[in-house]
Amino acid sequence: MFQSFDVLSDPSTVAPRLAALRAHMAKLGLDLLLVPRADAYQNEYLPPDQERLAWLTGFTGSAGYAIISQASAILFVDGRYTLQAAAQTDTSRFEVVHLIDVGPLKHLQTMLQAGQTIGFDPWLHTRAGITKLRDLAKRKGADLAALDSNPVDALWDDRPPPPLAPIAVHPVALAGTAPDAKLEEIRAELSERQADALVITQPDNLAWLFNVRGGDVGHTPLPLGFAVIARESRPTVFFAPEKLDETVRTHLSAHADIAEPGAFLTALTDLGRAGTAVSLSFSATAEQIVRTLEEAGAKLIDKPDPCTLAKAKKTDAEIAGTRTAHIRDGAAIARFLAWFEAEAPKGGLDEIAAATKLEACRRETNQLKDISFDTISGAGPNGAIVHYRVTTDTNRRISSGELYLVDSGGQYTDGTTDITRTLSVSTVTDDQRRAFTLVLKGMIAISTARFPKGTTGAQLDALARINLWTSGFDYDHGTGHGVGSYLGVHEGPQRISKTGHVALESGMILSNEPGYYREGAFGIRIENLVLVTQATQIPGGDIDMLGFETLTFAPIDRALIDPDLLSNDERSWLNDYHTAVYAKLSPDLDEMTRVWLERACAEI
Amino acid sequence: MFQSFDVLSDPSTVAPRLAALRAHMAKLGLDLLLVPRADAYQNEYLPPDQERLAWLTGFTGSAGYAIISQASAILFVDGRYTLQAAAQTDTSRFEVVHLIDVGPLKHLQTMLQAGQTIGFDPWLHTRAGITKLRDLAKRKGADLAALDSNPVDALWDDRPPPPLAPIAVHPVALAGTAPDAKLEEIRAELSERQADALVITQPDNLAWLFNVRGGDVGHTPLPLGFAVIARESRPTVFFAPEKLDETVRTHLSAHADIAEPGAFLTALTDLGRAGTAVSLSFSATAEQIVRTLEEAGAKLIDKPDPCTLAKAKKTDAEIAGTRTAHIRDGAAIARFLAWFEAEAPKGGLDEIAAATKLEACRRETNQLKDISFDTISGAGPNGAIVHYRVTTDTNRRISSGELYLVDSGGQYTDGTTDITRTLSVSTVTDDQRRAFTLVLKGMIAISTARFPKGTTGAQLDALARINLWTSGFDYDHGTGHGVGSYLGVHEGPQRISKTGHVALESGMILSNEPGYYREGAFGIRIENLVLVTQATQIPGGDIDMLGFETLTFAPIDRALIDPDLLSNDERSWLNDYHTAVYAKLSPDLDEMTRVWLERACAEI
Repeated sequence: MFQSFDVLSDPSTVAPRLAALRAHMAKLGLDLLLVPRADAYQNEYLPPDQERLAWLTGFTGSAGYAIISQASAILFVDGRYTLQAAAQTDTSRFEVVHLIDVGPLKHLQTMLQAGQTIGFDPWLHTRAGITKLRDLAKRKGADLAALDSNPVDALWDDRPPPPLAPIAVHPVALAGTAPDAKLEEIRAELSERQADALVITQPDNLAWLFNVRGGDVGHTPLPLGFAVIARESRPTVFFAPEKLDETVRTHLSAHADIAEPGAFLTALTDLGRAGTAVSLSFSATAEQIVRTLEEAGAKLIDKPDPCTLAKAKKTDAEIAGTRTAHIRDGAAIARFLAWFEAEAPKGGLDEIAAATKLEACRRETNQLKDISFDTISGAGPNGAIVHYRVTTDTNRRISSGELYLVDSGGQYTDGTTDITRTLSVSTVTDDQRRAFTLVLKGMIAISTARFPKGTTGAQLDALARINLWTSGFDYDHGTGHGVGSYLGVHEGPQRISKTGHVALESGMILSNEPGYYREGAFGIRIENLVLVTQATQIPGGDIDMLGFETLTFAPIDRALIDPDLLSNDERSWLNDYHTAVYAKLSPDLDEMTRVWLERACAEI
Repeated sequence: MFQSFDVLSDPSTVAPRLAALRAHMAKLGLDLLLVPRADAYQNEYLPPDQERLAWLTGFTGSAGYAIISQASAILFVDGRYTLQAAAQTDTSRFEVVHLIDVGPLKHLQTMLQAGQTIGFDPWLHTRAGITKLRDLAKRKGADLAALDSNPVDALWDDRPPPPLAPIAVHPVALAGTAPDAKLEEIRAELSERQADALVITQPDNLAWLFNVRGGDVGHTPLPLGFAVIARESRPTVFFAPEKLDETVRTHLSAHADIAEPGAFLTALTDLGRAGTAVSLSFSATAEQIVRTLEEAGAKLIDKPDPCTLAKAKKTDAEIAGTRTAHIRDGAAIARFLAWFEAEAPKGGLDEIAAATKLEACRRETNQLKDISFDTISGAGPNGAIVHYRVTTDTNRRISSGELYLVDSGGQYTDGTTDITRTLSVSTVTDDQRRAFTLVLKGMIAISTARFPKGTTGAQLDALARINLWTSGFDYDHGTGHGVGSYLGVHEGPQRISKTGHVALESGMILSNEPGYYREGAFGIRIENLVLVTQATQIPGGDIDMLGFETLTFAPIDRALIDPDLLSNDERSWLNDYHTAVYAKLSPDLDEMTRVWLERACAEI
């Protein structure tokens, strides 16, 4: 299985590790130490050897930050993780703080004293982050010390080695564009920026640009590494040689020189000494990288990596691939849902059994490379923990009358999927049905939205929320994130959220996943992936409009819908969607599942 | 009358003035000259002596920018003004460009040559604007020259003198808070910012802080002037002495030292020499002011003037005042609408007659201090010119079957109003009715929105547009702007638009004015003012929600509504609104208007 249900952390380790770290900090002369959940790539996905925050605090969520002093230990997490963090860490040692309310910077603003020294690992913080910290430290009369090595590493006895998974070529038939054409596009953008070179520090951009995939982190085919793309000469990619077989060496050598990761900083120093104008993003690049270039004399151009936007606008081949992957994945989901509806009312299921079955259904496609993230399998109150990961400790029975939330996805070479369904078991309360229908209305509002060129996800986000808002409800996460093509299940720059200030463009894939969470009772989320479509003429309209094509095909639990709360248009959308689900999935289904699906997709 | 219908510009003046300016530029050694519509206060409202852009180009809209070279003359205007600008300027001399498509900076990026010199008046550009220009000029190898005097002024023979309208005290009974309490609040914020002083350059903030009103610009009671608010000592206000009688001198002297405007730059130099930490906004303060402080050694803290946000959150007295003002204004509007419905079908009305009658209806209240802006009175295709100002040249007959759009407001000492209604004359086409109803749905969506603390206007904007978008329509202006209390009919920082990134807070007043414009055919806009209400518990909800209380009371033309396009909730809102309109306005109306209003407010 790709997923483990082991308990990953033990709050009892927190106290001795924190004590050891404090002793070590004292020896190093540090009053404060910053422990972000980050690696040198500033990526969301970390290999095990980079999980310093989890080692120290027990918290294993995908975003977090700790600040340690002799007197206090604060763990900052966002709204998705407040419950999980409190459960995983030792709350008598760590204070868990919602980082929207009080971020690390605001916290330091209050507690930092003149004369204190803050230690940080310059590989784990961005230049933008360090600039803000440096300004604050200066105002407060404190020192900010870039450390040569990470104090956690000195104490972490059984720290895993860095990953060395083999890199494979991603066929151009799936990628749609060859590396040469992508390099040409990126170089044109560098020319526009008057940059001589681009430094790529995001492994997903590296994978995209050179049409390769790796396996250095869980559930996402990332090859950890760096690249320097010179405008006028051959690129250099920095990969551990152990990851490269002859095939991939030949493939890469056609486009780039191959160097060892140890040569990366030297290459940056050489760039700097030559007075090169280097494009990189201060908010996405490690301080160590920026500083090395700067100190050697490079001219820095602070702009987003152009690969990020180019990668987000999928090619026709990627779009065709993702459509195929979604139908394959939808059939697996249908088999799971049919099984669930038959088994759950018997009372013998629990969260682990359901997640195990779901992975098995995906494996039956014989094309599953990995799941795209640990399945969130939450029964009853566990569904209200937005990024819940079931373990043998938390495993809950799936009971009649409770809601069951399952958020999961698959990695296939032709596409990455991500789908959430919330399921009833036997009986449903009016309260559950009303909340589910309000969430569904938001999800339909995004599905049916049309919008002019230039519209951002931030503008659309409220369409998913307004029905919840007017009922006094909300959800503490974005409505949608970008999704890769056999790459990260989360990718930028597009998103549907308050902070999604990038214009949506045709070919972008996003999730559409409003939710509602009642702590201690239940969680509801309905998620489809959508593709931003070409702007088209609306009959009688003045301007061409973009819209969304739904990529995900799987039934939405009709037992949880109150049809009286839907408008005629919403009801039509639901019925049309279910008709499409049946048409797309039924040809490949076993007879039992087909019959179940026909019922599940009946008109409402 | 407060409004004139004179033709303000004559395209035939453009050619000779442009030629004279180019000759003068050549003498000064300038390749390019920047002519923004701006004064030293960076305010929207200009006194006549500052209307350099209008003098040069003929364009009299409230926002614009020209770039002149020997070879080209570009006039940049936003979407509200593209039609008006083309009509007012000499388009054989000036190219009119939509500044969202190509702004001045992007234009310079293309056309600026190495070695060229760009002249600008440092009183008319913000520091933020100049920084961007300076970066661009540097990249291009061009020079940016701050001019000692404005080249337009040297050529402008009959340039009016600066205004010297008397300043009056704004009673604390209307303001709700005395200057001392406001100063205390502002000083607390300065303390938070570690600033020793605040420089106020926005006259509306000056008016708010000291509870005074002036009359230096049309339709807005602004006293032009500056102030320096020291954290630890008495403020200084800089007003022309001619504007101050004994009463206002006594009032001001209780809180501040009074100085002449000529002493302002000297005061800034003194602040700088003392090493003062000064809070001001680079994006709202003239380069000349920032530069004077900087060169004298001041430490600059680039933050918005705290008065702007404080002013936006109205006091209980201001809220009570605005409610009263809106009922008074609504009664005037009702008298106008009843008259219009009786007169328009006879065929004798034109745009000027209607605007004249409307001002007369407001004057009948005996409390009108001014109209809050030139009434937009547009029949048929003129209604599609978003900021149309009728003149004797453009005056159009109001004909049966055409739509008539009227956007107007009043300045009363207890409140500022702003209302738009679109009216039918005799017959209505299905097309007009459908478009009107789509706009109405957007307007109702904002009226009924509930939203959590922290929500911005940018998040709400799409709620007003989504019904238009899905029909292939849009409108090229924001959905709502902030409104002052007997101050600017446009004020920040809150707005409902793509760029409204400030959280809405209770006590803020905004307009709610979606529209739809079909060039050459008709314009539709429906506008009410709304007040952001306190967050309240929604029965059964989890979190307290903010919302909007509608302040404007006047009927919406029922003949233009297609009830079949409204949901039950929308129909209820409309009927409830009309019931409230009748209840609020009828007690003060003459019998004929009352009878008309009863009919206009009947259930739909």
